[in-house]
Amino acid sequence: MKKLVETVPNFSEGRNKDTIEKILICFKDKEGVKLLDLHRDKDHNRLVVTAVGGPDELKRAVLEAVGTAINLIDMRAHRGEHPRMGAVDVIPFIPVKNISMEEVVKLSKDTAKEIWKTYHLPVFLYEESASSPARKNLANIRKGQFEGMPEKLKSPGWGPDFGEREIHPTAGVVAVGARMPLVAYNINLDTDNIEIARAIAKAVRQSNGGLPYCKAIGIELRERKITQVSMNMTDYTQTPLYRALEYVRAEAKRHNVNVIGSEIVGLVPMAAIVDSATYYMGLEDFNIDKILETKIIEQ
Amino acid sequence: MKKLVETVPNFSEGRNKDTIEKILICFKDKEGVKLLDLHRDKDHNRLVVTAVGGPDELKRAVLEAVGTAINLIDMRAHRGEHPRMGAVDVIPFIPVKNISMEEVVKLSKDTAKEIWKTYHLPVFLYEESASSPARKNLANIRKGQFEGMPEKLKSPGWGPDFGEREIHPTAGVVAVGARMPLVAYNINLDTDNIEIARAIAKAVRQSNGGLPYCKAIGIELRERKITQVSMNMTDYTQTPLYRALEYVRAEAKRHNVNVIGSEIVGLVPMAAIVDSATYYMGLEDFNIDKILETKIIEQ
Repeated sequence: MKKLVETVPNFSEGRNKDTIEKILICFKDKEGVKLLDLHRDKDHNRLVVTAVGGPDELKRAVLEAVGTAINLIDMRAHRGEHPRMGAVDVIPFIPVKNISMEEVVKLSKDTAKEIWKTYHLPVFLYEESASSPARKNLANIRKGQFEGMPEKLKSPGWGPDFGEREIHPTAGVVAVGARMPLVAYNINLDTDNIEIARAIAKAVRQSNGGLPYCKAIGIELRERKITQVSMNMTDYTQTPLYRALEYVRAEAKRHNVNVIGSEIVGLVPMAAIVDSATYYMGLEDFNIDKILETKIIEQ
Repeated sequence: MKKLVETVPNFSEGRNKDTIEKILICFKDKEGVKLLDLHRDKDHNRLVVTAVGGPDELKRAVLEAVGTAINLIDMRAHRGEHPRMGAVDVIPFIPVKNISMEEVVKLSKDTAKEIWKTYHLPVFLYEESASSPARKNLANIRKGQFEGMPEKLKSPGWGPDFGEREIHPTAGVVAVGARMPLVAYNINLDTDNIEIARAIAKAVRQSNGGLPYCKAIGIELRERKITQVSMNMTDYTQTPLYRALEYVRAEAKRHNVNVIGSEIVGLVPMAAIVDSATYYMGLEDFNIDKILETKIIEQ
């Protein structure tokens, strides 16, 4: 069974076409690697690449792209709205098929080690690969951004996991880690009362004692005159989408409000949808191995 | 966008391992062709192969397998429980991705023509490729089986679509055609009263004025002491699975019976499941292009 990993590296360049093309080329026409998607944002001045492949092949492609980014991006001149701390800002690895989280953690650490060894770019490990709870959350690591990193690296507890307590002069630092796929799942309510959406979001999110692996906020969709519980599901294998939907539906009833639809933003793993279909259709003995496309990918 | 077609050829050999292996080899290690599944049944004395690939590559693999089957299978000695009329009994072609039904009909006709030209095996076109309504249904064509075919071919209206009115002496005849993927979908009821299952099956099936593209019978699951509406959905793009489920659920209520689960037998296209998940989750703007695995296959 072929092992398949996804990576979604973020590069601090969303404007210079030549630089972007040279980064993308590292993922193109590579045996065992597929470039699935790219998102460049001029305001953020950031490039987000989505690629899948075998663990070794993907590691090689990422290392090449890191080298390219270090050569071509000078963070001392970088301006953009998105918080960032390096030329390559963050490199998550995500298990897709036939590979355990443990293996992907190892892949992330191997990659991190080689990034330091090859390019002398200091690396923080984050999420499942984090060396301490304080480093699990990327926002904690990135706080201070590129400009604040020289000082931060020297402060107690903030030496990098690979490298010395000094930034790469032009490329800063990078976070590398393994994580579950994240599903951006939003549920629409037939009310324009934002307080109700916020109350439901509060009830459903993990941090207030709701569903595990669920982050949620209430937002207004002004044009449609409705509100939305906007969620990030950080592990759909632990908290399936249908459970979030039914939880929100039940909470909505308390406020005499109805769920009128939902949406998924970006790409979602097939298993997350199959799982919810299985629930609603009451399917017995069903899983993604019964899907034709799974067999096609496995060959 | 790569065109992808599925074929599920049925061969009249389920016992001889050497013959089976030689047929399978035609689909293995072929550039652009993937052998997905095989099912051999000794009682039926039949081999069912599932393969996908590009239209041209798949046609070449099928032609090679037809030649192998003709060389190695002698229908004059064939015994098995499943009705059959040839060494290769039936070859359906099914659109999977980025290809229209019209193109797959053409593929089936090109393949049929070459089968006659190369091997002098007479071919009937069936389903979407049928040259008349009487030939749409495979059962009509196969009636009489191998033993009755010599006489049938000479009877009015039963000349083959390619070839002369005489069977191949050892390989009989074959049916080739294009069809939609068939989904075997069963719905379980919390009653052991077979009459209720039969009444619901009668209400839901197309031939009694129920749902289009739905064949249905009521059956008993004696061990579990329940009954089942067992359905063949012949075009899930026209009649989605959720609609059959909700239709059966509504009919069941008339009999004070509940739907307690459902099952899909064999492989099902991702779109059929995504479609039903979209319905039950009220997903807006959702389709298989939002599924990670779709992007992986498309590359």
